[in-house]
Amino acid sequence: MTSLSPALLQALHALLGDRFSTSVALREQHGRGEAHHAAALPAAVAFAETTAEVSEIVKLCASENIPVIAFGAGTSLEGHLSAVRGGVSIDLSRMSKITRVSAEDLDCTVEAGVTREQLNAYLRDSGLFFPIDPGANASLGGMAATRASGTNAVRYGTMRENVLGLTVVLPNGQIIKTGGRARKSSAGYDLTRLFVGSEGTLGIITEVTLRLYGIPETISAALCSFEDVQQAVASAIQIVQLGIPIARMELMDRGLIKAVNAYSGLNMKIEDTLAFEFHGSPAGVAEQVELVSAIVEENGGKDFEWANAPEERNRLWKARHNAFYAVVSQRPNAKGWSSDVCVPVSRLGDCILETRALLKDCTVPTAILGHVGDGNYHVVFAVDPNNAEELVEVAAINKKMVRHAISVGGTSTGEHGVGTGKIAYLREEHGDAVDLMSVIKRAVDPAGIMNPGKILP
Amino acid sequence: MTSLSPALLQALHALLGDRFSTSVALREQHGRGEAHHAAALPAAVAFAETTAEVSEIVKLCASENIPVIAFGAGTSLEGHLSAVRGGVSIDLSRMSKITRVSAEDLDCTVEAGVTREQLNAYLRDSGLFFPIDPGANASLGGMAATRASGTNAVRYGTMRENVLGLTVVLPNGQIIKTGGRARKSSAGYDLTRLFVGSEGTLGIITEVTLRLYGIPETISAALCSFEDVQQAVASAIQIVQLGIPIARMELMDRGLIKAVNAYSGLNMKIEDTLAFEFHGSPAGVAEQVELVSAIVEENGGKDFEWANAPEERNRLWKARHNAFYAVVSQRPNAKGWSSDVCVPVSRLGDCILETRALLKDCTVPTAILGHVGDGNYHVVFAVDPNNAEELVEVAAINKKMVRHAISVGGTSTGEHGVGTGKIAYLREEHGDAVDLMSVIKRAVDPAGIMNPGKILP
Repeated sequence: MTSLSPALLQALHALLGDRFSTSVALREQHGRGEAHHAAALPAAVAFAETTAEVSEIVKLCASENIPVIAFGAGTSLEGHLSAVRGGVSIDLSRMSKITRVSAEDLDCTVEAGVTREQLNAYLRDSGLFFPIDPGANASLGGMAATRASGTNAVRYGTMRENVLGLTVVLPNGQIIKTGGRARKSSAGYDLTRLFVGSEGTLGIITEVTLRLYGIPETISAALCSFEDVQQAVASAIQIVQLGIPIARMELMDRGLIKAVNAYSGLNMKIEDTLAFEFHGSPAGVAEQVELVSAIVEENGGKDFEWANAPEERNRLWKARHNAFYAVVSQRPNAKGWSSDVCVPVSRLGDCILETRALLKDCTVPTAILGHVGDGNYHVVFAVDPNNAEELVEVAAINKKMVRHAISVGGTSTGEHGVGTGKIAYLREEHGDAVDLMSVIKRAVDPAGIMNPGKILP
Repeated sequence: MTSLSPALLQALHALLGDRFSTSVALREQHGRGEAHHAAALPAAVAFAETTAEVSEIVKLCASENIPVIAFGAGTSLEGHLSAVRGGVSIDLSRMSKITRVSAEDLDCTVEAGVTREQLNAYLRDSGLFFPIDPGANASLGGMAATRASGTNAVRYGTMRENVLGLTVVLPNGQIIKTGGRARKSSAGYDLTRLFVGSEGTLGIITEVTLRLYGIPETISAALCSFEDVQQAVASAIQIVQLGIPIARMELMDRGLIKAVNAYSGLNMKIEDTLAFEFHGSPAGVAEQVELVSAIVEENGGKDFEWANAPEERNRLWKARHNAFYAVVSQRPNAKGWSSDVCVPVSRLGDCILETRALLKDCTVPTAILGHVGDGNYHVVFAVDPNNAEELVEVAAINKKMVRHAISVGGTSTGEHGVGTGKIAYLREEHGDAVDLMSVIKRAVDPAGIMNPGKILP
């Protein structure tokens, strides 16, 4: 790990004043995300307020080959924030301006530090919303950088589909804009989607242009419980295969329901459960509900419990968004370890069956949850980060899950990103295409200063 | 232009037998697309039948720094096929196997030479379809390479959204697979979308994995005519802004209707027209029709003329797909020149108004058509390719259209690609991001043998 030279320290202080700090508390806060990964502290933290400042910071660090790590809301689950080679954590949370909203074109531009909840609070009166919703209240820059998704992806897609353009600071400090405001374009390489999911390893995203959607005329949410998780999964698969435009379809196993009830003060039946949300016109929603009810009933699901009052619905989804924290809070001083495989929907049933078998003798608290409409599911493990045996045990289960997913055409990470946690699986999943990723990385960031040690071996 | 050495000629003959040719007729056929761009002949044409053969051809050419140009159906509109530095045209049309269709996962894998019509004919009995439909019966590899779209994009997206994975031969002959079959993934750089739209300049796409859709329960098509194109555009904008999930919404000005009637033996009213298609359940379609009717009426549209019998509907869309050929056929020995701007929908009205003013004194036959739901529209000019004055005149109009589109946040090409035709506008549209595209191009293809002279200056 390289330490910062006196000249660099002085230059960064001169640029940012007290927005540049080497305090241990700040460095500790910036050296990890929310999951089990060990922290690795940056040498300093720089709070940027503009794209131009990010560019200046990157230029200064580049001049001494010092790593830079973008920090948004700190909610990463795969070790993206570990400063494995030291360097400067560039905190973008103060870049929180919503620059432009166009109701006519259903798009907006925000600074990278704006969180998804902040954007939706701002939009509420306009009748618009932004659907992508990882559990955490993540920053939109961070969500773009990890190609995040969440509960609405089955209907609205992920960050891949919903980012129209970006402002990016490159490793040499150059500022570029990618994409544009047209809904489609064939004008050259798709740099937008190259940076979406690049986890700060090619550049730092400082502004994001996003698609927005009209709040549906009718929104209806329901819970349905099942004797067995397999019945729930079978229902979900049929719903997807029929092309029903369901907005949310979330699996919560009974372990999760128990944790969520305790954490969020709810009273859901402790059974394997699908939570649905339907968006559309009154007639459209009625039609979807009818189709889904029939499928669920055929698979042994019990009656729908409706949560249609907005506050009731919000409580349900807020509880679902807090699922990770709910599982972790079951155990004092635990950290969460979340698996994140995504498979073709036709293979979801056998994958979840295999996962359940893997969990049978697991010694730490676990819960299964998933965006089953996409074939994406998680096991959250509440681990003691200081217990090496537990970490080995969970790592082995996680590895088996990932290998099984890859063997059926799936992916090691549906929405959390590679970070440090999935590097070992990248070649298994992508073969020699990983070499091409490395070629691109070396070309764009020849000194290797952008979030080193992430994505690529 | 480098000529092929005797050793290379011999090696390619040994590999391919009579599937390798230097005949002038074949070279002429492979040195241009369907538009006005001047032909530039490759030195030879190689008909590949497998990915491994493409790899061998590329390796042999790479060993002597000879350019390679992928050729699918030959329907490019922006000069992608011009062998500006000679080299070998690799014809993929014999790679026409549909490798795999999964009705359960709504996806398929096809070889690059499969055309969109071939795929849909194959799928018909399965109840599935692939929606992306440029006018021409293009190959799916070519459509991926140009990031094509068509009339259904407003509902189903473009090739960007519908390609799940690719097999690609890199400039050194290495074969890689990008993406996968999971609906979403955060596992590393999005190489799939880097190749989608790269126009053969980074590698040759030999296989494509695509999303499929269930054929809607109800499909309903209608024409609506307007006194003035502005009323039609105003209607289209409102329909998009209301988020009505319309499947197709095509603008055809009266010039186009006249040309299409003559070319396809139809009898549409010669007025500015919107052609609609509605997909959904019976109730859903009825609801969409009601909303759209009200908007259209408010904007002075006349009654819908329905085309609901499948053969009638097919005739309508077939005529629409042949629009380019229809305009060109109005004039003996003409070639088509198609503009292709795409703008934020809120700016579509003023852009089309400006375009109409530009066309007022144009000396060649023209027609305006567009996928107005996306903000994408074309003027097709029927030009005499040997008349330099005409080419200058049309180039000037095209340039003004492009500059206006870029000035309002739009793009120089919505779906046809850059090829040779839009290179001059790339920096105006993307600024310094073009430098990053060049960095990537040089890293992936250091010798510059992949379709040289396209996309980048």
